[in-house]
Amino acid sequence: MQIIEVHTKSRPSTVFCGAGSAEMASEYLRGAQAFVVTDTNVSRLYSERIAQLFPGAPVCVLPAGERYKSRTSLFRILDAMLDARLHRSSVVVALGGGVIGDMAGLAAALYMRGTRIVQMPTTLLAQVDSSVGGKTAVDYRGVKNVIGAFYQPERVYCDPLFLETLPPREIRCGLGEIIKTALLDDSIGQKIRENTGRLHDLAFLHDLAADCVRFKAGIVERDETESSGLRKCLNLGHTTGHALELLCGRRSHGEYVLIGLWLESFIAEGEGVCTPAYAQEVRSFLSLVQPRIPRIPNAAEGLRYALLDKKNNGGDISFILPKARGEYAELALTPERYERYLNILAGEQA
Amino acid sequence: MQIIEVHTKSRPSTVFCGAGSAEMASEYLRGAQAFVVTDTNVSRLYSERIAQLFPGAPVCVLPAGERYKSRTSLFRILDAMLDARLHRSSVVVALGGGVIGDMAGLAAALYMRGTRIVQMPTTLLAQVDSSVGGKTAVDYRGVKNVIGAFYQPERVYCDPLFLETLPPREIRCGLGEIIKTALLDDSIGQKIRENTGRLHDLAFLHDLAADCVRFKAGIVERDETESSGLRKCLNLGHTTGHALELLCGRRSHGEYVLIGLWLESFIAEGEGVCTPAYAQEVRSFLSLVQPRIPRIPNAAEGLRYALLDKKNNGGDISFILPKARGEYAELALTPERYERYLNILAGEQA
Repeated sequence: MQIIEVHTKSRPSTVFCGAGSAEMASEYLRGAQAFVVTDTNVSRLYSERIAQLFPGAPVCVLPAGERYKSRTSLFRILDAMLDARLHRSSVVVALGGGVIGDMAGLAAALYMRGTRIVQMPTTLLAQVDSSVGGKTAVDYRGVKNVIGAFYQPERVYCDPLFLETLPPREIRCGLGEIIKTALLDDSIGQKIRENTGRLHDLAFLHDLAADCVRFKAGIVERDETESSGLRKCLNLGHTTGHALELLCGRRSHGEYVLIGLWLESFIAEGEGVCTPAYAQEVRSFLSLVQPRIPRIPNAAEGLRYALLDKKNNGGDISFILPKARGEYAELALTPERYERYLNILAGEQA
Repeated sequence: MQIIEVHTKSRPSTVFCGAGSAEMASEYLRGAQAFVVTDTNVSRLYSERIAQLFPGAPVCVLPAGERYKSRTSLFRILDAMLDARLHRSSVVVALGGGVIGDMAGLAAALYMRGTRIVQMPTTLLAQVDSSVGGKTAVDYRGVKNVIGAFYQPERVYCDPLFLETLPPREIRCGLGEIIKTALLDDSIGQKIRENTGRLHDLAFLHDLAADCVRFKAGIVERDETESSGLRKCLNLGHTTGHALELLCGRRSHGEYVLIGLWLESFIAEGEGVCTPAYAQEVRSFLSLVQPRIPRIPNAAEGLRYALLDKKNNGGDISFILPKARGEYAELALTPERYERYLNILAGEQA
């Protein structure tokens, strides 16, 4: 069991990674009024387990999938919380992937101006990244995460048991954020380079997840609300990733991050942020997890979605780009200039 | 000009009270992308002034009144923010009473996980109380403030110019929170006792408002999110006040606080929290502002609404009661016991 403390200004958060975490969550919440938020996939596979872990707790089951990360789902959770007559000391348990974690986290942040929240991520992506750091949100009017809050979970329990039932697509999704983190923290990069054959071994992935959480905790502690700029580094690959996610929308967040990293390696190279050799290294690294590069109808469409991103102030588009092993750089491009790179996706496949 | 610093953990907030504050706000926001949220009343009276103070800023005008403190209004603001393509460094200006301040504050807290927010309270109630301290919310499914967040405004500008156009009902509403504060801070109580003839003199009221803000700042600094229990003292009179507001609903929040204080003086006396002499003093104090005590159909109805309050965990009902000059006590009553006191409102008028 690895225990990682996240010391943020707003409230301390503790992450538990390892077999038996789910039981620990159950133990921790004994005596509290627990309220479980999950989705149809998790509920189908684990409903008995949920009843065992949190006996008597109401379970709010939402439809699974990124497109249900909406205002409607948010209010379904809030309605169920009201129906269950939760109070401020009740504990919301977000049992699911990133979508459930983000939405249940936001509902917990808003209900009575803040109830307790515990994250129990069931996907690799959520265990690696989204359950830690307190970012909560729903998408709205086509803009990703535009309604949300920073609200730290008091505990995060990452149990590898849930990874066993994940489809390959979900593993690839988690690998997206792992590779991103490995580009920011070269000790993780090194570990992957030394174990390229183990990238589909769940025990190894769960171990990497803990490394990623430790790295992220260090960032979040220093810049909880993304105000100093430091936390932005976690958006490596996300500018293009988010745009493609909105434009294509059939795959999962982490896959689009992989594709974003791929395209942005060309930007980093083309704009002189990194050497051609390092850009090539990034792409080889990505090829370990074989991202399936999509074609887009045309570059202008991709650009339109990139301009919707909340990180852009209307003018230039900002990127966090790979610079060297464990290093990144921030760069802004004019829409016209970015469009040229997007043409790579509109043209021949790499 | 009085300047009051509120040092909360999440972010510092500065309150300016005095003539010329509105101009200072205008000056402060020069160069920023400002976005004004207001209501039909303020817009009718001050639209030219708003255009002068914040040239070129989009103005989102909501229907006036407590019953529009709803999810629908919240999303009208968020929609207008999206339409105006605001970014995280844009500044929402909440120009109105408590309802506008609470809703614009919540919209600012949620938009892109937090934009900048400046409060410009136009009512006595908002200048005395609601614009300071970072509580934001909307009502939902009949429960007051059940969806909200703690989100500190970076600046609060209380300009007495807006008080001149307030109807008497709004003055009485502000007096509700002033009297409440005077019961918690006897230096304010003393000032009122020495100036009973000036309770409708706007300059005096504006001066009292600054005293109330200073008192509240001291509380909020020590317990920003109402977690240690200290901030609860600001709920003096509010348990009954909120229940009656939901049940009767035709008057303003501050008036119901006055009525709540009146009824709860009987509870304090009856439960031995204060002496009969002090309870009588509280009621004489209240009579300075002549609260119009309503009749309710029956005590059971009042109780039903009290039980909806988010502060109650389903069992006993908690109260913050006057104990002695500048002192309060927390007390929980069983619903049955509280119902007996509610009978005072169902029976003969006092």
